[in-house]
Amino acid sequence: MDPKLGRMTLKEWVAIESDSVQPTPRFRQELFRMMAVAADELRRLGASVDSVDMGSQQLPDGQSLPIPPIILAELGNDLKKPTVCFYGHLDVQPAAWGDGWLTDPYTLTEVDGKLYGRGATDNKGPVLAWINAVSTFQALEQDLPVNIKFILEGMEEAGSIALEELVQKEKDRFFSGVDYIVISDNLWVSRKRPAVTYGTRGNSYFTVEVKCRDQDFHSGTFGGILNEPMADLVALLGSLVDSSGRILIPGIYDHVASLTEEEKNMYKSIDLDLEEYRNSSQVKKFLFDTKEEILMHLWRFPSLSIHGIEGAFDEPGAKTVIPGRVTGKFSIRLVPHMNASVVEKQVKHHLEDVFSKRNSSNQMAVSMVLGLPPWIANINDSQYLAAKRAIRTVFGTDPDMIRDGSTIPVARIFQEIIGKSVMMLPLGAVDDGEHSQNEKINRWNYIEGSKLFAAFFLEIAKLHE
Amino acid sequence: MDPKLGRMTLKEWVAIESDSVQPTPRFRQELFRMMAVAADELRRLGASVDSVDMGSQQLPDGQSLPIPPIILAELGNDLKKPTVCFYGHLDVQPAAWGDGWLTDPYTLTEVDGKLYGRGATDNKGPVLAWINAVSTFQALEQDLPVNIKFILEGMEEAGSIALEELVQKEKDRFFSGVDYIVISDNLWVSRKRPAVTYGTRGNSYFTVEVKCRDQDFHSGTFGGILNEPMADLVALLGSLVDSSGRILIPGIYDHVASLTEEEKNMYKSIDLDLEEYRNSSQVKKFLFDTKEEILMHLWRFPSLSIHGIEGAFDEPGAKTVIPGRVTGKFSIRLVPHMNASVVEKQVKHHLEDVFSKRNSSNQMAVSMVLGLPPWIANINDSQYLAAKRAIRTVFGTDPDMIRDGSTIPVARIFQEIIGKSVMMLPLGAVDDGEHSQNEKINRWNYIEGSKLFAAFFLEIAKLHE
Repeated sequence: MDPKLGRMTLKEWVAIESDSVQPTPRFRQELFRMMAVAADELRRLGASVDSVDMGSQQLPDGQSLPIPPIILAELGNDLKKPTVCFYGHLDVQPAAWGDGWLTDPYTLTEVDGKLYGRGATDNKGPVLAWINAVSTFQALEQDLPVNIKFILEGMEEAGSIALEELVQKEKDRFFSGVDYIVISDNLWVSRKRPAVTYGTRGNSYFTVEVKCRDQDFHSGTFGGILNEPMADLVALLGSLVDSSGRILIPGIYDHVASLTEEEKNMYKSIDLDLEEYRNSSQVKKFLFDTKEEILMHLWRFPSLSIHGIEGAFDEPGAKTVIPGRVTGKFSIRLVPHMNASVVEKQVKHHLEDVFSKRNSSNQMAVSMVLGLPPWIANINDSQYLAAKRAIRTVFGTDPDMIRDGSTIPVARIFQEIIGKSVMMLPLGAVDDGEHSQNEKINRWNYIEGSKLFAAFFLEIAKLHE
Repeated sequence: MDPKLGRMTLKEWVAIESDSVQPTPRFRQELFRMMAVAADELRRLGASVDSVDMGSQQLPDGQSLPIPPIILAELGNDLKKPTVCFYGHLDVQPAAWGDGWLTDPYTLTEVDGKLYGRGATDNKGPVLAWINAVSTFQALEQDLPVNIKFILEGMEEAGSIALEELVQKEKDRFFSGVDYIVISDNLWVSRKRPAVTYGTRGNSYFTVEVKCRDQDFHSGTFGGILNEPMADLVALLGSLVDSSGRILIPGIYDHVASLTEEEKNMYKSIDLDLEEYRNSSQVKKFLFDTKEEILMHLWRFPSLSIHGIEGAFDEPGAKTVIPGRVTGKFSIRLVPHMNASVVEKQVKHHLEDVFSKRNSSNQMAVSMVLGLPPWIANINDSQYLAAKRAIRTVFGTDPDMIRDGSTIPVARIFQEIIGKSVMMLPLGAVDDGEHSQNEKINRWNYIEGSKLFAAFFLEIAKLHE
């Protein structure tokens, strides 16, 4: 591989403003261009490429916009070799120079070994690193040790519209014969030590509405004689979690996987500098003092966050309104082996209990509006072993075995529908700033990342010999 | 008085779109026109009129808009007669046809004896009724039994900007010699029985900010290890009032005036049909079951309302944000003899106590952003006696002696600065819908209101004989 050439391609890709979040015809056009450029790149690699038309989406304002095609590409069809499928996305979060960016977000700019640009780490860089890994074998005129498949989408930042439907449809065609699925769309927890990610939390999102009447009241005219919906709602929300972060909903911890000694030990070796983490987070004090507790509470224990209230007075100033109908919003991050529908029952039961004790004349309605299960992989799967060995070869160290506290539905979608081992093998460092201003990927990570993927191909093949 | 003529003038006044709430040059121009038209009307009455230039106001967006003049007018200067000063305002709340109005809000329209139009009852109708009362004496070629002064402003709905300053300035000039101040800017509690208002609640408005950091967090990345500001805030707000409406802040009831038998008896005779009130309010059930309890909790006991939260997620949808800094807003309606600065100390002490028990690492800041005292008059003042007699003469009934649960700062301003008896003598019926769509004044109220004011002039003069 020519690393300079690789960087040139990343520069071209970053220059395409493939923003899927802002639904404008111009950005949508850029997304289509991005998918076409990537398809060409894969064809140059020798892959057979299928750009699947995904139709269009209806926006809330009635506008209809075309969805960029999803690329399905295949390279190699040797039945004796294992088949690895790589998932990536080529759309990006919005970015505007002047919005806190120190360089033009769509001009890849190297400063001190860091390649700044929107999409550099999320997810154009890792996709290109994978492509570069494949082309390295070709440059060295070596046979690829594995069959490779690609599934590349352009709507990840907008909720992966249409992806699940396609995976379902292609289950017995494109995905037949796939042995392993690799996603490289998250970050290490360290600046320097590579990581392998084997789990993500799920999420159950709730709304709780308290209604007296549809219209608001004036506090001068009605204050003192009403069961005010905000008083009820604040009491309901206040019953969910205590000041130590413990969720107060009865039964909620019943199905949380118990902690084994083996798992406990894994947290000890993870490269997380607490002091640095606290400083970069701008948080004075966390709920826990040790690295192990913090990691466990981000990854393997549920958490409950109250997000806000719809329908109350939320603007600056001093309005003397008694909101007539308010909706509180909170969510619980789910961990193995919690089940969203069990959690839904527990939450509803708890809130109904608290509400009935208030003896309020208002009406309460609780809904779970989103129930995404957690994802966890078996870290003894072959590809995890192969990844560890490849990391040792390229980086000379053992990886951090990590999870992600957020919900990345795609891992769970592949695992559930295709039923094969899924692994997340990130390339980006903890300070890459995905989704924020001045997103970057370190040149070192980008180049070594290609080598890691190449070494991974070899290790996976060895395990199949 | 020619009632038809009076209605014609009201039609002309309502046709002027004197909206002080929407700060646009067009509405401001209408306000100036309104004040000029009223000044002309008062001059026709024979009054000497002073339109005091109030300068201009700076809007938050940097725009500067002129403040409509305040009219000071005098009619009669007989030292042997008592002097009654009437306060009114000629600006209105916003209104737009199609916004729920069944008729054009700026075209006074009579339907079944009701005169619909913006400002009809709040406050153009009552101002004209007072003017009509004066002109009745002139039409009958009778000597006015009292000296009359007018103070008419055009910014009441926008917070009476500049009014207090002018009252202070004119204390020893225009207001010297004033014996009584009459305001007719509220409503009866009944559809049929007139009322005299002798008190209003005050208001102390609080913000409580809880801050972890300025930026928000993502609940996937930080949920589980933070003292989340929303959890703290919800606990703070939840500590303020119980589900029976009782305020939980220690000491808050200490200075509330004790209830005498005499006061208690006054509530019994008030014309309030509970069933009708509940239906028109669209409230299933109030906190109290009797008329007396409801009136006392609206008028003579403090109430606490939680208005909302600034800085949290308040839009439709399911955003997984952990707000980094949130500000809760609530207010306490103050009653005699509560003192806003004592309440401020009690609230701060209570919230600091609740917060310290949570042992949170966040920062909390409590502010009282508004502290308006309650107003209460001595109902044995001569003008209250005169008003009762006049009501008996014109309506053949005793009035409801009422208070208003809202805060009407102007009564308190006059009482404090001028030191004379202030009375509110409303003309509008309970269902007039001031501030809402389809505002109206009953033709009967408008016409009998003029007679009431005329009879009041006579009764007041008699008491001074």
